[in-house]
Amino acid sequence: MNRSIIVYVTGRFLLLFAALLLIPLVVSILYAEGIGLALNFLVSSAISLGLGLALSYKKPKEEGLFAREGLVICALIWILMSFIGALPLVFSKTVSSLVDGFFEMSSGFTTTGASIMQQVENLPHSILFWRSFSHLIGGMGVLVFALTLMPKVDAEAVHIMKAEVPGPVFGKLKSSIVSTARLLYIIYLVMTAVLIVVLALLGMPFFDAVCHAFGAAGTGGFGIKNNSIAYYNSSAIHIVLAVAMLLFGINFNLYYILLLKKVKQFFSDEELKTYFAIVLVAVVLISLNLYNQYKNIGILIRDVFFTVSSLITTTGYSTVNFNTWPVFSKAVLIILMFIGGMAGSTAGGLKVLRVLIYSKSARAEQKRQREPGRIAPVTINGKTVSADVIRSMLTYLTIYLGIFMLLLMLVSLDSQDFGTAFSAVVASFNNIGPGIGQVGPDGNFSHFTPIIKLVLSLGMIAGRLEIWPVIILLSRKTWHKT
Amino acid sequence: MNRSIIVYVTGRFLLLFAALLLIPLVVSILYAEGIGLALNFLVSSAISLGLGLALSYKKPKEEGLFAREGLVICALIWILMSFIGALPLVFSKTVSSLVDGFFEMSSGFTTTGASIMQQVENLPHSILFWRSFSHLIGGMGVLVFALTLMPKVDAEAVHIMKAEVPGPVFGKLKSSIVSTARLLYIIYLVMTAVLIVVLALLGMPFFDAVCHAFGAAGTGGFGIKNNSIAYYNSSAIHIVLAVAMLLFGINFNLYYILLLKKVKQFFSDEELKTYFAIVLVAVVLISLNLYNQYKNIGILIRDVFFTVSSLITTTGYSTVNFNTWPVFSKAVLIILMFIGGMAGSTAGGLKVLRVLIYSKSARAEQKRQREPGRIAPVTINGKTVSADVIRSMLTYLTIYLGIFMLLLMLVSLDSQDFGTAFSAVVASFNNIGPGIGQVGPDGNFSHFTPIIKLVLSLGMIAGRLEIWPVIILLSRKTWHKT
Repeated sequence: MNRSIIVYVTGRFLLLFAALLLIPLVVSILYAEGIGLALNFLVSSAISLGLGLALSYKKPKEEGLFAREGLVICALIWILMSFIGALPLVFSKTVSSLVDGFFEMSSGFTTTGASIMQQVENLPHSILFWRSFSHLIGGMGVLVFALTLMPKVDAEAVHIMKAEVPGPVFGKLKSSIVSTARLLYIIYLVMTAVLIVVLALLGMPFFDAVCHAFGAAGTGGFGIKNNSIAYYNSSAIHIVLAVAMLLFGINFNLYYILLLKKVKQFFSDEELKTYFAIVLVAVVLISLNLYNQYKNIGILIRDVFFTVSSLITTTGYSTVNFNTWPVFSKAVLIILMFIGGMAGSTAGGLKVLRVLIYSKSARAEQKRQREPGRIAPVTINGKTVSADVIRSMLTYLTIYLGIFMLLLMLVSLDSQDFGTAFSAVVASFNNIGPGIGQVGPDGNFSHFTPIIKLVLSLGMIAGRLEIWPVIILLSRKTWHKT
Repeated sequence: MNRSIIVYVTGRFLLLFAALLLIPLVVSILYAEGIGLALNFLVSSAISLGLGLALSYKKPKEEGLFAREGLVICALIWILMSFIGALPLVFSKTVSSLVDGFFEMSSGFTTTGASIMQQVENLPHSILFWRSFSHLIGGMGVLVFALTLMPKVDAEAVHIMKAEVPGPVFGKLKSSIVSTARLLYIIYLVMTAVLIVVLALLGMPFFDAVCHAFGAAGTGGFGIKNNSIAYYNSSAIHIVLAVAMLLFGINFNLYYILLLKKVKQFFSDEELKTYFAIVLVAVVLISLNLYNQYKNIGILIRDVFFTVSSLITTTGYSTVNFNTWPVFSKAVLIILMFIGGMAGSTAGGLKVLRVLIYSKSARAEQKRQREPGRIAPVTINGKTVSADVIRSMLTYLTIYLGIFMLLLMLVSLDSQDFGTAFSAVVASFNNIGPGIGQVGPDGNFSHFTPIIKLVLSLGMIAGRLEIWPVIILLSRKTWHKT
């Protein structure tokens, strides 16, 4: 383990993070929120700067940055930035403790959108902006962002990037990975900008449009209104946001393919087709289940589509309280929460690609059960998936379920009923935000004890980074002297 | 697909099943329950005999019995015997419909122990015996039983056996498989007999001792008292049953090893150690969680040990209503319900061996994450598990979860709350019996609609046969003309 490079890269990152903290400072000044709030961001930025300078002062003794260092750096930075990012909330007394702030900001960066806030409408603009902005930078990845800013990036940086990008993508592109990532980031920011403009044109106040676009882009879900998107009584806004969430749940590599005008390749992508098929089936099933509760079928489909899009992309915006929906609809929604968006998107969950591989592996196994010894390869987009990749993906499911059970046991120590514990873990670990029951669209996470809030925060970070970075960081073996 | 051999073997099995139906007839006569009840069993037996003769009248045209025929035969026979086994319940008006009878008997044969009965204490002895007897024959497998009775068994019979034995065992023993199975069956019956004697010596009425021993042996859980084992106010009985359930949750191959006096090999078995470790950890965690609710620590540990043993072995007997336990304890119990007993035992669930392989695979994957390209084999008892076996076991998890979700969606259509739907599926698919909530130790499955009862019955059979036989039976491709 090359500790000096971990310290150095972490320090360098904090310098960038200090700069990011100046953006809400600008918002604070623009809205003339007074010197107090502005100072909160300035002091937090200064702390990040000071810490960053101290850590990156010494050049690393050894150069080597391998997989394990990449994983550790990634997990470390995500925890650190959630702490430092929480400082403005603590200083401004928006939250009552550092733990609450850490929960709120790790929820922001991981694009979970779970909140300990009971009221958000009376918060200052700069704080609301900072929460939503954390979705934007957490969505595509802060480290990917940092790396794309560097003029010349070492090939080794791929290890950091790989640790942060959601889903099993970025396979072979080692040499061109940074330039590709840069392009993907530009696509991401342009799409966000377009969404801001469309929302504003539809009558949403500009500030609201910015925050909600950030939330949709990162598939985060922090609201700036107490009743989320239900506040905006406009079908057009609901539909635009539903479509937008769905688009940000798509693998960004596919947009790159679309830019290359390979339209056919885009639409024939198996993961994309599965993703759309799941959304369609879920909308149809839930609409049938709710048919009697709605008078207007258009409104029915609008609400169902919004909810399905919000939950499969793990965004967590709401226009209706799906807590009151029948059990069947809730069961479908919970399954969507586990599936999540596409690999390489900003969404959480297991990812459609994994679910697709799981289902194809099961079909291959069925063939082998029928005829033992039969060769039954698994293919995606016409290409055979290697046995190593399949094993790695299947094993991900075991570690995912293992961590899920561990979180469930811990959170159940602090829950009034099993449903709330289950829902809180589903919603945080899959980076969704609001769950079902006490932590549903109407509820929040404020009632948990500090220690469980820390557990859930770590769960959110583990979920966002796809588990391994956090496990490697916390594993004793990682820190053994070699 | 060799249809004629499927028909023939199914017919031959029904001849044996007709004989099995005469055993409760004897009970009915012994207890002088009157000609009506005796006739119910006699007629049911005659139906099985007639159907069996008709199906096995024609010798199969082709000899070939391969994996797929084995799987289809196994699934078909389990469904058929649950239907025919239900006839005495229907004829005697113990249940009000064939669907209810089918549910009750598939619950019996699969050793689930979920019941649609609201009252059992007023049922005739022969009916109670038949329910409990179904646990005994379902536990080790009816087909295994049938095969061990045959004087000369074709090597091809291994395909039928493999389809029925729970857990990934019976690997290489092809030639000696039948003689081994015969020995295991004898061990099983002797252990059951010993349990009957011990329970009777402890003051349990002989009939009760027989039924409960059958239930513990098959890890079934049908009670003959409305409040299950809580009826017997004797710590000794509780503890003996708790230990017995735990023993029947052990891989029977290990008892064979013990008979060969290889004591060291027995105790060094990794799956066994994991099984005991899980039980120990669960008892300690739940006892700590319940510490304030009990005055007497001995009673506390007795009740917790009984419940843990009952749920990890998927038996489902109860001495306390764990529905009232705190959320943490319930979370631990639910996790135990998924783990289940050891492979090659009579228990249900995923099986400890699979969970062990999953956790070892995750650890191996962790090594590969830290150092990509590293070779990290998975070993059990010092031997490397082949990549094929690991893939097959990992894939089992995906198909298990897939069927689980499908069942959950279907059952949620007929549930008042998500918890009940979830619990009903956990309890039936894992062959446990009582779940949590409306289907907890205090409740039953009678409130579900007929169609959902059929779904849950199929779920129980799929769970008992480890899914593949039922999938292959229901798959259209299986029945394609070749």
